[in-house]
This record gives sequence, structure tokens and C-alpha cells, in this order.
Amino acid sequence: MDFKKSEEQELLLESLKELMERECPEDYVRRCDEEGRFPVEFAKALVDNGFGLLGVPEEYGGTPVDLLTLLLVKEEIAKNGGPINVFTQAFQLDNMLTYGSEEQKKITMHYVKQGQVPFCIGFTEPQAGSDTSAIQTTYTRRNGKVYLNGHKTFISGALTNPYLLCMARNCDETDKTKAFTMWWVPMSAPGIKVEQLHKIGWHMLETCEIYLENVEVEEKDIVGQEGHGFLQLMKNFETERLLMAATILGMAECAFEDAVRYANQRVQFGKPIGTFQLIQEKITYMALKIENMRNLIYKTAWEKENGISTQITSALTKLYCAQSGNEIIDDALQIMGGIGYTNDCRISRLWRDARNYRIGGGTDQVMIHIAGRNILKKYR
Amino acid sequence: MDFKKSEEQELLLESLKELMERECPEDYVRRCDEEGRFPVEFAKALVDNGFGLLGVPEEYGGTPVDLLTLLLVKEEIAKNGGPINVFTQAFQLDNMLTYGSEEQKKITMHYVKQGQVPFCIGFTEPQAGSDTSAIQTTYTRRNGKVYLNGHKTFISGALTNPYLLCMARNCDETDKTKAFTMWWVPMSAPGIKVEQLHKIGWHMLETCEIYLENVEVEEKDIVGQEGHGFLQLMKNFETERLLMAATILGMAECAFEDAVRYANQRVQFGKPIGTFQLIQEKITYMALKIENMRNLIYKTAWEKENGISTQITSALTKLYCAQSGNEIIDDALQIMGGIGYTNDCRISRLWRDARNYRIGGGTDQVMIHIAGRNILKKYR
Amino acid sequence: MDFKKSEEQELLLESLKELMERECPEDYVRRCDEEGRFPVEFAKALVDNGFGLLGVPEEYGGTPVDLLTLLLVKEEIAKNGGPINVFTQAFQLDNMLTYGSEEQKKITMHYVKQGQVPFCIGFTEPQAGSDTSAIQTTYTRRNGKVYLNGHKTFISGALTNPYLLCMARNCDETDKTKAFTMWWVPMSAPGIKVEQLHKIGWHMLETCEIYLENVEVEEKDIVGQEGHGFLQLMKNFETERLLMAATILGMAECAFEDAVRYANQRVQFGKPIGTFQLIQEKITYMALKIENMRNLIYKTAWEKENGISTQITSALTKLYCAQSGNEIIDDALQIMGGIGYTNDCRISRLWRDARNYRIGGGTDQVMIHIAGRNILKKYR
Amino acid sequence: MDFKKSEEQELLLESLKELMERECPEDYVRRCDEEGRFPVEFAKALVDNGFGLLGVPEEYGGTPVDLLTLLLVKEEIAKNGGPINVFTQAFQLDNMLTYGSEEQKKITMHYVKQGQVPFCIGFTEPQAGSDTSAIQTTYTRRNGKVYLNGHKTFISGALTNPYLLCMARNCDETDKTKAFTMWWVPMSAPGIKVEQLHKIGWHMLETCEIYLENVEVEEKDIVGQEGHGFLQLMKNFETERLLMAATILGMAECAFEDAVRYANQRVQFGKPIGTFQLIQEKITYMALKIENMRNLIYKTAWEKENGISTQITSALTKLYCAQSGNEIIDDALQIMGGIGYTNDCRISRLWRDARNYRIGGGTDQVMIHIAGRNILKKYR
Repeated sequence: MDFKKSEEQELLLESLKELMERECPEDYVRRCDEEGRFPVEFAKALVDNGFGLLGVPEEYGGTPVDLLTLLLVKEEIAKNGGPINVFTQAFQLDNMLTYGSEEQKKITMHYVKQGQVPFCIGFTEPQAGSDTSAIQTTYTRRNGKVYLNGHKTFISGALTNPYLLCMARNCDETDKTKAFTMWWVPMSAPGIKVEQLHKIGWHMLETCEIYLENVEVEEKDIVGQEGHGFLQLMKNFETERLLMAATILGMAECAFEDAVRYANQRVQFGKPIGTFQLIQEKITYMALKIENMRNLIYKTAWEKENGISTQITSALTKLYCAQSGNEIIDDALQIMGGIGYTNDCRISRLWRDARNYRIGGGTDQVMIHIAGRNILKKYR
Repeated sequence: MDFKKSEEQELLLESLKELMERECPEDYVRRCDEEGRFPVEFAKALVDNGFGLLGVPEEYGGTPVDLLTLLLVKEEIAKNGGPINVFTQAFQLDNMLTYGSEEQKKITMHYVKQGQVPFCIGFTEPQAGSDTSAIQTTYTRRNGKVYLNGHKTFISGALTNPYLLCMARNCDETDKTKAFTMWWVPMSAPGIKVEQLHKIGWHMLETCEIYLENVEVEEKDIVGQEGHGFLQLMKNFETERLLMAATILGMAECAFEDAVRYANQRVQFGKPIGTFQLIQEKITYMALKIENMRNLIYKTAWEKENGISTQITSALTKLYCAQSGNEIIDDALQIMGGIGYTNDCRISRLWRDARNYRIGGGTDQVMIHIAGRNILKKYR
Repeated sequence: MDFKKSEEQELLLESLKELMERECPEDYVRRCDEEGRFPVEFAKALVDNGFGLLGVPEEYGGTPVDLLTLLLVKEEIAKNGGPINVFTQAFQLDNMLTYGSEEQKKITMHYVKQGQVPFCIGFTEPQAGSDTSAIQTTYTRRNGKVYLNGHKTFISGALTNPYLLCMARNCDETDKTKAFTMWWVPMSAPGIKVEQLHKIGWHMLETCEIYLENVEVEEKDIVGQEGHGFLQLMKNFETERLLMAATILGMAECAFEDAVRYANQRVQFGKPIGTFQLIQEKITYMALKIENMRNLIYKTAWEKENGISTQITSALTKLYCAQSGNEIIDDALQIMGGIGYTNDCRISRLWRDARNYRIGGGTDQVMIHIAGRNILKKYR
Repeated sequence: MDFKKSEEQELLLESLKELMERECPEDYVRRCDEEGRFPVEFAKALVDNGFGLLGVPEEYGGTPVDLLTLLLVKEEIAKNGGPINVFTQAFQLDNMLTYGSEEQKKITMHYVKQGQVPFCIGFTEPQAGSDTSAIQTTYTRRNGKVYLNGHKTFISGALTNPYLLCMARNCDETDKTKAFTMWWVPMSAPGIKVEQLHKIGWHMLETCEIYLENVEVEEKDIVGQEGHGFLQLMKNFETERLLMAATILGMAECAFEDAVRYANQRVQFGKPIGTFQLIQEKITYMALKIENMRNLIYKTAWEKENGISTQITSALTKLYCAQSGNEIIDDALQIMGGIGYTNDCRISRLWRDARNYRIGGGTDQVMIHIAGRNILKKYR
């Protein structure tokens, strides 16, 4: 066994750190958060400095790297207090670059290269959260055209991304495994109405409801194969889980380091609070959880690269990282005390943002459902 | 033993509930929260309907009731989703009505009767959080006048309350137990500068830094006895802990009921999510914790009324209620899923507000410190 | 509300404590445990001193008391380190005194008055643990006689108690709600074979498998009404849960007091270990859980006496007390360190015994199942 | 990074598994446990099959392997339900083979080759548990001889091992860092008295008190250098922690697999209990913790082999594995229900044995103390 990052990985992370010190100070991040806007300047800087196209195939101008390297970059951004909603290509682009038409890919890459997110992912609906198969948005063919009707919710980036990758059900198909198809829809299409939701955190990426009323598309706007929507969707779930896990790991590391430094400096009752066992205990368990998170993520990435099934381990990793990440950040806030509860301290932002990781990308409960059943099956 | 509320208590709570349905709908509370303003209309309605002066001695126009009744009212307001920063008289007025001069009491009651909070409590300082004895704000006598200098932080209501109850240290007194005195200072006094802090929650009550630079007061502005500031301060800590516990209990009950109702209605995978054991388990432990919170609060109030020491039990009660209350509300949010993370759902507000209860009024760690040492002492 | 024990209860507990100091020193309990025998001398002393027949109706020579008093006695015995398998009348006799024939009751009371347990309870079977309705033991009528056949497991006292209260299924009855009947069987009956199981704890009460092969009984040996077995069985479940809760509460109090005293005396690194925050923290949470256990048990007993349904609250109480009791005793062992892991310290016995409370009388999981579903139902 | 065991390691573990199937069936282990005796036959089989001298330098007839391989072997033995007190050479021999005289080493290896443990480790004393520097056993020189006096406790193997490695204090030396020396004492020496302690678990290895009264030794019986006792002692603490962690990991894996298999087979309420979410949840978290334990142990071993400090990580690993191992085994017992509480099920033995891992080799609290302070120091 070998637990060392490669020299290339070390160098990459070092240069990323330097880039962030220059282009992504806390000040900037806080401002984006307060103004509720996408950190497009930093996203652009990532592209300009060679990070933005990591993991994208060479034919699209990218630099292919292994999954572990992508996760390390995602972790490093969050660890340095950076925006948590950039560098999502590994997961987000994959569908388009694998299944998209030439034209769709061209548009996609055009936006990516400017640091913009080309499309939002339109899967979730009011009645289809954990239960994705309950999607009610339909597509209907009429006079050589296709019409989309339905209601999507919790759609990230719906006000700023130019396209929607919309999962819809063929209302003439009764076999659920063949009923779903992905469509490529410009957000400016007539019949689309968007309403913003206001959230506890994740302020740098707006979340919206999207209403589709007779939105007209064409056959060429299918992404991938008709009836294969679900298959295409699920293909990326495991990668998404690892990317989320890596982000919350980075957030937890950021909070941990801030809290440890504070515990060394903050004096109460005549000595640094880090000399109290109640604080030392918190810090011990925080460090332990971070170590566990790292190991889980890196090992599962290694499994995926080596063709070992990660159905169980990616669910375990997402579950553990989401829960432990929240616990670590909560402990950090507690160590900071009153100041941690205010905007003067980035831990308050991490704390608000982190909560979403136990819901989005599959709730804790869904992860238990996936892992539990499959572990039992293995021993049958 | 008898675990029943009295008939008077039941009637009082019932009429409070009716009042809230009329005067304090969720809409109103959300608006106050979004606008970041004190819910003065509801506070006034409480006064007008006989609740606002409960627990205030008759001589000041109030209606004396026992501590349990006060706590039940505080719980009921929060349970119905009401503002958590009203009905604080039991704790807040006590100092003034016990130690204040006739003039100070007159001013105090004048504001109370209009539903306003007459003064903010100026104890905490940047270097004196858990360690209250580290207060650095001083008072100095010069030419028949007294001058206050210092820096207070995390002061609630500093922009709206007309007075400041300011703890300051006599710079000529070296005996720490005699050095502190409470002063009554108009917030409009020259030399006072206020800066607002922005917080995760508690938006209906602004929190500020206060800078005092040669703020001139007079001998008559002492509250209580010179050098007795600490004694007067600590007298009310146990009551404050119970009031905070009762509030977070009410908040937890509110979140619990919302979540249970949602679990009965929300359908995923073809059945209400309440039929899944993972949800039933959460709801079981939520109910259990609420039961424990209630019992702790009611019993400790009974002890206080019956002259039994509550030094240990009030710390245990604050600790348990703050922690369990946060856990319950977090579970409720998890049950609600994505919707719970948005402002469309009052659980998101409860979740942001609740976090403060593990810090303010003595952190979890301070409660452990107080309870742990004193339990050990009892068995020595 | 009133949280005070009555004067009668206080006096009763005081005189019980004195009795135990005289008749039930730790030495005696340890010996019974090591020898694996029922503490018949102490059980007799309880009878002789008026405790043994508390809760038994006057017509059978007993002294009726309310449920709370019974629970307080059960708690007090365990709190003083006494055997946990005596004073079970409230639950165990109830079935016989309610449903038994005159002769059955006479026999029962004869043994009770000598400090003996008259019968063992024959419900559980290898395939019918949590799922009591899966009982396979049958009764068949043939030539005016009745024959019992089956296999019972985890039967307490099967080697020392003279009778078996045996739940059996009428093999001719297909309606499950009418199929079960209780039978009164002498353990000496031909066809009964007993095999002892060896357990982690509970050594003062042997646990056995019982094999019944054509055990002949008569119509008069029915206890209660034919087909009503289940109804009769379930009637006492809630009381059993409270008695178990009260016992584990007493055990936890015993362990807590031993541990706190030890923490005050044991010196390491130059000072009593009770001065370390890590120990103070443990002791704080132990005290908190004990307080919660007490409140839950006393309140639920009060509810039962006042005709309020305790279906949910007795399940919550059993669940919380079993889990928290185990946690407290485990913490006490940890505070004692190596010595706590040896027989020189009664905490090791408490620790081994306590584990059973999360399984027997309904597992944690069954309690969650009962409470969770019924709470949800209440809000439908 | 690479998370794969080497081919050699895989082969070694496979052949160990086969050996255990032949030489170490559950039956045999249970018998040793019930009879309270060292599993000398299996220890001999390990030697005869080349495992017993793994990790021993070639010059003593052993086969040097890296630490990870030793830990994998230790884990595998426990994972297959084997005795937990064999294969301790890595830690136990190290002191003797590093510091012992030629004669001492000869004796040591003589016993090792017969599958016997050559000596017991005499460090702990009644007043010196976590605080090893409080050791009171003294050595005094008189007339060319050396005399040992003192009282050791919790000494494993004191009835069967032929020698004692005895830490004693020079009563003439006031500098604590130079006062301690290790002595090599035959257990048959006059003046040694042994008394057995009875424990909750670890029945295959007796634990004793040792009283030393004027036990005569000679200068040549010093192990290592005079005054260097502590340095020599601490050198091996980190390895001991990893070996304990690997053992409890193996035990947890054993319990986990038994429990999962049982959950697949055991039917209640008409279906395997593994179909209930409450069981699936337990199994999910058990698997997650096992994954974390593995990663922590393997990585820390890799760090040690690569010259990276493991002061913090070995403490974290011991802490996490001891706690999580106990939780996993406790959950396994809960899944097995009543049967898990009896000797018919090896989980009951694992459960009793596991508890010691949170005490021996440094308590949880000591691990927090070591890790917490040193993490804080790193960020100062």
C-alpha cells in the first residue's frame, strides 16, 4: 500500500493554493456570498490557469486526469475557503460530453471556457426528490415538434446558466425503465418561467423552481438516446457523491484549521482555551473524522479507477463525509463561540452551506438505503 | 407527585394560543425576520392582553405568577412559531425592579408597557465571554462626574432599546469581588458608538458592538450597590437558563409537529415517508427528547419555587435543552428535505435561530464546567 | 405540578435501605452472582419485612400500593446494589391473580410468601422473539386430556420455579387473534425437558430452553379464558416496561455514585481524576441521563394511575432507560478503569447485567417500532 | 496512492486462514475461554507454520516483515474468531531483543519457539495506571545485590509466563527522567507473591496482582541501560496501540460478518430481519466504521514504515478503533438479540473481550490527551 500523493498532484495543489491566495481571498468569497452571485471571476481564473479544464477530454481542449486528482483539486479549493460551486466539470460535463450531439458539445465547451456553467440540471421535481422515478414532466410529440410540460424544483443556476438539461417522461410509454429522456433546452425558450427559492446557504448559486408550459423543442435536442435518460443519469451518481464528499472534506478542513488556530490564541480564564480538555477533545475527534473522510474518499476514487465496484463505498463515503463534515464545522463554530455565529467569521458561511450536503445528491437516508441493502446482498 | 398543569395555566395557554392565531401568523413572523426588526406589534398585543406584565410585581402594574407559569408562556409562544425574543421580562426586568432607583424603574416600566424592551444588557466584552470576570470596561470618577470607557460586544437590541445596563470595573479597586458596578446609561449619551454585527439567525433582534469613550454618567446612575455588580448579575443566571431552555423547547415542539405532519403527508416511493423506519426512528427520538426537556424545565422551576438549589439542575437543563433542541430541529429539517433548507419553511428559521442557544447564556462547555464540578463536590 | 415523593414513600424507601444494609450487603450479592443462584434469603427478608407483598391485593394478604411506589421500591433495591431479579410481583403476579383459578392463586401465593418465584413465564420461542404472534407451541385435545408440544427458549427460572405459565396455540384455530391460550403447568410434569443457557450476566436467575413433548394438562389448567392468551399477555407489557426501566435506573444510580466517589478519591498525575474536564463531562451527562430516566418513569407511572394512555410513553421510557442506563454504567466502568473490568468492583456485574435490558422485554428496535408508528398516528 | 495488499500479504493471509480452519475452530477457542487457559496449541501451530516468528529478526531465527504485514496477521486471527492474546511478538519481544543481554535473549527465544510467552510486563501499579511516572516499586542496592520491593497490578500472564520484565524506581535518584530501570526477574524468585484478578473478559490470559518483597536480583538482570527504563518503555507504545487496534478491528469484522449473515437468515414478522431499515442502518454504520478502522491502521503503519511521526495518528487510531470496535460488536449483539447474550454465540465473548480495549494500552481519555495537545501544538 502507498498513501502518498504523487509529485504531480502535490505540485498541482501547491500552484492552486498560490492561485487562490492571489485570486480568491476571503473578502472576495464573502462578497460573492453576500451578493448572491456566481464567482465568475475565480471560475475564469481557474480556466485561465489550467484548472478549469482538468478532467475534460483532450479533444475538447481539456487535460485528462484521474478521478483522485479531480477530487484533490475540489478539496483544495474548499480547504482554502473558496467557493464550493465551482470546478464541477467532472460530474456536470460528463453527461454532455458523453451523450451530447456535436452542436450541444460545442455550446457547452464555449461556456465552460469562459468560466461559466453552461446548463442546469433539471431532474428534481416537487413529487420526485429521493424517488427520481416519480418524475412527472412530460414530453409529447405533435406536428413534428416536441412539447415539454412540467414543474422542476431545486434547480441550481436557473437564472444564470443558459441551458437546461431536462429529464422528461414519454407520456405514451408505460415501461418506466424506457420512459425517460434527457432534453437540451435553452432557458430563454418561450413557456419557461423561473422563480427563485431562498435558502439557508449556498448563496453563490441561486436555486429555483422552473415551470415548463408547452416548451417547444426538436428531435435534435435529445441528449443521448431516447428512453435512456435514467441510465445516463445514474451513471454519474457515484462520481457526484465523491465530488460532494471531497468538497465537504475541504470545508471541514478549512473550519478545523481556523478553529485550532483560534483555540491556540483565544484566552479565557487566563489561558488559551486550547488548554482545556473539553476543547482538546473536540479537536481530537475533528482531526479523526477528517482523517477518516480523506481515507474514504481517496480509497473509493482508487477503487473506481481500478474497476472495483463503488456502489456501496461511494454511498458510505457520501454519508460519512456529509455527516462528519457537518459535525466538524459545527464543533468549529462552537469553539469560536459568539464570533462563530456572525458573518465576521467564515465558519458561519461554511456552517450554513454544509447543511445542504446531507440532503442534496441523495439524503443520508437514501445513502443508508443503498449501502445497507447491498451489503446484506453481498453476504447472502 | 403530580405532573398536571393547573387549570389556570391551561386557560392562560389556551388564550395565548388564540391570541397568536390572531396577532402572530407565520407570515408576520417571517416578515419581521426578513426585515430584521423587533416584532413590536406582537409585543404590544401581549401587553394589551395581559401577558406582557406577567411576572412583574403588582406595585408596577404587573401580575405576579410563579416561575413555571412564565416558562409555560415562553414555551407556548415559541411552540406556535412566534418570535423568540419577546416576553423576556422574568429575566430582564428583575435586575432593574430589584435594584433600580425609583426613576430607573419608572422609565423601565414606561417602555415595557408599550411592548418595548427598555434596555440592553451590557456585560459581554471581546475578552470577557465565558469568563465574565475579565471585563475591562472601567468607570473613573473625575470632578464629581463618572466616566465610562470600554468596548462591549454581542449586545442585543443596541439599536432599538433606549438604555444600556452597563457592567463596569472600578479601576481603583483591586479586589475583583468588589470591583464591578452596574450603570444605567442612555444609549443617546455622547461617547457611545454602535456597530451592528450580522448573524446566522436571531434576525429580529440586532446584535451590536458598543464602544464607550468617556461616556459621562452620575452617581445616581448606579444600579443597585456599588461593588455589587457581580452578585446582582449572577442572581439571575439560573432564571435566564430556564427561560432559554423553555424557548428552545417551544421551538423544538414547533419543528417536531411540522415534521410529523409532513411525514404523514409527503409521499415518496408510493407511500408516506412516515411509514419508513428511518423516519419513525427519528420521530421517536425527537419525541423522547421533547419529553425529557419538558420534565427537566418543569421540575427545575418547581425546585426553584420550593427553595431547592438549582445551581446544578439549571445548568443541566440549559445544556440538555440547547443540545437536544438543536438536534430535534436538525432532524425536522432532514425530514423536510430540500424544502426544509429554504425560507419557504419555518424550520429553516428555527434551525438558524436555535444554534445560538448552545452559545448564548453560557456555552455548553460552561454548563458542563458548572454542573460537573458541583456534582463532584456534592459527593466529596 | 409537584415533583415530591410522599412522606409514606420516603419512609418506605428509608426502611428498605436499612433492611438492605442489614440483609443484603455487596458480599452477599456477589456470592449469589458467582454461585448462580436466586437470592432467596433476601427475597424472604423482603416478604418478612412487608415489602414482598406490596402491590398484591389485600384479599391475598398483600398491601395494595400505587404503581409509582412499586417502581420506587424496585429502583431503590437496584440503587443499593441489590439483586435485580427480586420484587417482580407487580408484573409477574398480575396475570395469575387476575385470571387464575382459586387453586392456581393459592399455589402462587404460597410460594410468594416464602420469597420464591412461583412460576416462569413461557412465551418466547426460537422463532418467536420480537414477533410473539409466531409462537408454535401447540395444545391438542385428545381423549379428554390436553397435550402441549413445543419448544420455549430464554425462559427465566426454569430450574427453580415450580410452575410454567405456558402460552400455546390451538392448532385447530386459524384466527390468530383467538388461537392463543395460557396454561398452568407444573415443571415436574412428564415430557418437560430443560436445558440451561449460559449468559453474559443475570447470573442469579438461570435461563433455559424448555422442550415440551406431549405434556399432559387438563381443562382446569387454563389460565383465564381460552383464546384470550394474547390479550392477557399484552395487558401487562406496559407495566413490565416500567419495572424494567426502574431497575436499570437503580442500577445506573448505583454505578453513578460509585464512579463519582471514585473520581473524588482516585489520584493520577497528582490530583483527583474528578478535577479533569474529561471526567467532569462524563459525570455531567451521567447525572443528566439519570434525571431524565427518573422523570420519564415517574411521569409515566402517574399517567397510568390517572387513566392516561401509556402505550407511547411506556415504550419511550423503556427505550431511553435501557439505552441510557447502559451508557451510564459503561461510563462508570470507564471512570474506574482497569479495576472496573474486574469482579472486585460491582460495576462489572452491573455492566454485564445491564446489557440484557436492551433486549429483554422488547428490544430497542421494537420500542421504536411501537412508539414511532403511534406518534405518527396521533398527528394524522 | 495504492490501497492494495501485496500478493505476498494476500498469500500469507490465505494460508493463515486455512491453518485456522484446521487448528483453531470456534469450539477450541470457546473451550480455552471457558477453562481460562492460554491457547498454547494454537500458539505452537503458529510457530510451526512460520507465523510465530514473523517480525522477529533473522539472527534470532525469525522472518522480518514490515509492520503492516504483522498487523494484517493480527487482524486476520481475530477476524476468524481466533484467540486475541497470541501473536504479540511485534510489541512484546521488541524490548528484549533490542535491549536484552545475550542470555536474556536466549531464554526469551527459547520460550517463543514453543509458542509460550516468555515474560509478563510489569509496569502498571495500583497508583500508576494512566500516570506511569507514579511507579512506586523500588530497587535498592545492598551488599552487591539488588532488591526489588513493590506491588504491580493488572499483570497479564503472571501465572504462566516464566519471567517478569519489571519496571522499578531507583530510590536514590530524584530526577524522574533518570530514575527508572527495567529488570529481568524469574517469576519463581523468592519474595514474589501472585494473586489472580477475575475479569469480565480476556479469560484466556490471567491477570494478576504481583507483590514483590525483597526480591533479589543482580546487576546483570538489568534490561537495557540503567535509568533508561522510561525511554525504552515508550518506544513501543505506538506499536502496541496499532496492534491493539488491529486486533479489535479483526474482532469487529468477525462480529460484523456473523451479524450480517444472521440478519439474512433470521425471520421475524414474516421476513428476514435484514429487510428492516433499522437493521440496515446498523449494518451500514458498522461497515462504515470497519472501513475507517482499516484505513486508519494501514495508513498509520505505512507512516511508521516511512519515517513519518505517528505520535498523533497512533493515538487517534487506537482511540477510534477501541470505541468503534466496541460499538460494532455491541450492534452485532443487538442484531442477534437474546442469543447474542448467551455463550452459544461467539459474539458474547467478543463483547466481553472488546471492552478492555478502551482501557488497556492507554484509556480513551489518555489517547485524547495525547492527540489533542499535540494537534494544537502543530498549529501553534
